[in-house]
Amino acid sequence: MCTMTEPTVIRLRKNEERRLKAGHLWVYANEIDTRHTPLKDLSAGTCVLEDSRGKPLGRALLSPHSLIAARLYSRDVKQALSRSFFKKRIEQALTLREQLFDDACYRLIYGEADGLPGLVVDRFNDVLVVQTGSGAMEAHLDVIVSALDAVLAPTHIIAKNEAVAREFEGLDRYTKALKGELLDEISLTENGAAFVAPLAEGQKTGWFYDHRAARQKMQALAKGARVLDVFSYCGGWGVQAALAGAESVTCVDGSEIATDYVHRNAQLNGVADTVGSIQGDAFAAMKQLIADGEKYDLVVLDPPAFIKRKKDFKNGLAGYHAINELAMRLVKPGGYLVSASCSMHMPAERLLEVVHSSARHIDRSIQVVGYEGQGPDHPVHPAIAETAYLKTWFCRVLFSL
Amino acid sequence: MCTMTEPTVIRLRKNEERRLKAGHLWVYANEIDTRHTPLKDLSAGTCVLEDSRGKPLGRALLSPHSLIAARLYSRDVKQALSRSFFKKRIEQALTLREQLFDDACYRLIYGEADGLPGLVVDRFNDVLVVQTGSGAMEAHLDVIVSALDAVLAPTHIIAKNEAVAREFEGLDRYTKALKGELLDEISLTENGAAFVAPLAEGQKTGWFYDHRAARQKMQALAKGARVLDVFSYCGGWGVQAALAGAESVTCVDGSEIATDYVHRNAQLNGVADTVGSIQGDAFAAMKQLIADGEKYDLVVLDPPAFIKRKKDFKNGLAGYHAINELAMRLVKPGGYLVSASCSMHMPAERLLEVVHSSARHIDRSIQVVGYEGQGPDHPVHPAIAETAYLKTWFCRVLFSL
Repeated sequence: MCTMTEPTVIRLRKNEERRLKAGHLWVYANEIDTRHTPLKDLSAGTCVLEDSRGKPLGRALLSPHSLIAARLYSRDVKQALSRSFFKKRIEQALTLREQLFDDACYRLIYGEADGLPGLVVDRFNDVLVVQTGSGAMEAHLDVIVSALDAVLAPTHIIAKNEAVAREFEGLDRYTKALKGELLDEISLTENGAAFVAPLAEGQKTGWFYDHRAARQKMQALAKGARVLDVFSYCGGWGVQAALAGAESVTCVDGSEIATDYVHRNAQLNGVADTVGSIQGDAFAAMKQLIADGEKYDLVVLDPPAFIKRKKDFKNGLAGYHAINELAMRLVKPGGYLVSASCSMHMPAERLLEVVHSSARHIDRSIQVVGYEGQGPDHPVHPAIAETAYLKTWFCRVLFSL
Repeated sequence: MCTMTEPTVIRLRKNEERRLKAGHLWVYANEIDTRHTPLKDLSAGTCVLEDSRGKPLGRALLSPHSLIAARLYSRDVKQALSRSFFKKRIEQALTLREQLFDDACYRLIYGEADGLPGLVVDRFNDVLVVQTGSGAMEAHLDVIVSALDAVLAPTHIIAKNEAVAREFEGLDRYTKALKGELLDEISLTENGAAFVAPLAEGQKTGWFYDHRAARQKMQALAKGARVLDVFSYCGGWGVQAALAGAESVTCVDGSEIATDYVHRNAQLNGVADTVGSIQGDAFAAMKQLIADGEKYDLVVLDPPAFIKRKKDFKNGLAGYHAINELAMRLVKPGGYLVSASCSMHMPAERLLEVVHSSARHIDRSIQVVGYEGQGPDHPVHPAIAETAYLKTWFCRVLFSL
């Protein structure tokens, strides 16, 4: 299905097609031959990409005023962003999730890695929460909604477009219902546990499914343990630790909404007696726990991204050092530290160095007993490093030799 | 407990203590001040390590004729290799495994990462299989056996010292019973499946527990699938795939002993009707399957180390390319490739590049849906890169965009 009007053609500069040929999907603004195809006067939409000699490369989403000016979505230049196109890609993504999960609770579409650049859809049973990250995708929201409806017939489709990054694309920030009414909260299951989480007032789409595999792996360490869950949000880690047989769980979060949900979720899973909370700054709370002489068999550290942009690296790294050292002091020798980072700019090896140096600093050694990236409903595109952002190390803490 | 004789003192050259201070345990021969402490006339045993100014650093296993001349085992210079020392380290290692596994089947001691350089012990319920990788550890086998007996009272302790690397340490290769009689095979469970495997005629200690976590992760991809298990050995992957609901499984291995065990293990788990085998060279077998037009929903590729030494890198890499391309051709679009490498010199990212380029080569794209390192009974020492050797990528194979 082609659109009736001829699509815009964007020509790349010499050799700038190499990345695309290696499987990547992005074109940066400075890779475009702007003498041949001026970007200035164009608006968001789709375009045909061609190399410097005019050979067509495929069809892309165009964001003429953005650093990432184009995102390839098909190597077929005739492929329009039609309903049938979206249906096919959604079905392909759905097949993966249905193979992997018993319940209809997962990230259904993860942008580039699912062949739909700039689109994220989280599924909470009959509720879909959509995020669009580019003007071109945003312009096709009605086709997307129609395709989602055709494949899944959800009761609700809600756009939760509050990401700060939208401003770089010149997009407004808003939350609204695209099908059904707006909801205050969503319900879901993860690794067999039931959760509710705030939608309008919650972070991102309301829930972080990306840690599912890591939370599964954590469970073996929680049996009989005294657990501290730092940056707990609504208790994803803590409640699953309690269900896995933890003796006690303390969830720490700065948000009162989050700690309220911790208790609701503990109750929902019959572990209200096991799960407590501290509402307050994580750094301050950990310092107080150290001062009080508290020790835990398992500390989970799942901070927000301390390194949002490359230039924040040094400050962010210092933040990871500080928080891991505090956490390390709270782990009993023989206990475990689960340390995560969702900063795309923080390499996994670097995070392990942070944990290791925190251990050496207080004369402890560690054994690395596991690693997890993001769960399989957040697949990584092997050519696009940016699609891999989450890392979690599982470390046993011992007295030094 | 000190031995009665004064231990040998080995002095390091200037600044060569830095690695040890950062948590590493090895001293290379060229880092020793041989004018002060000549290595030539020494024999394998323990020694005290000191820095260039004579400040003691700890106690180490000495292998005077080896590239790795000393391996630190304690920062306490008075710590002899006594029975109580081994007992303590064994108990510390056991606590981790008992936390993580229901059955007594795991790698109990993993060398440096468990604070016992040069010692590996695999546990198969009441049978322990021991490997020593240094002359000093070898010289203490009787104390080790006594300590293992005190902690676990096994019925059998067998030394399976057949590694080629022993020759670099000037050690013989042999298999013998240290307690109980020599056994032809061992029995074990892994992820709930039961297995038998050959001991004397088998590879390494008879079983590769290191893939346990990866085999667990594989199971979700095996449901209803037509599975090809290449380099199957005794069917660790294949039989677990069958138990996870695979429609059919074909195990490929060059060894007739291995394929015989595949069938025994399939029978043992009630999946004999699902599991078949091809005995023959993996490359040739895959070429034949391609020629026959066979396609699979899941191909597992678990080759032996193609890069045994750094200088083999180029040839080994070519081998990984060749085998991954063959495997990729056998995966149905929408199916999965699980690709592993146990070569220490093959970085995880490089293996993913191999898989990705194999996909691009036949106009496929991949989604990375998971990663596993070695299981938690093979912990990684964060300062010793050599203790991390195993990587497994889980990739979904799709038609290109």
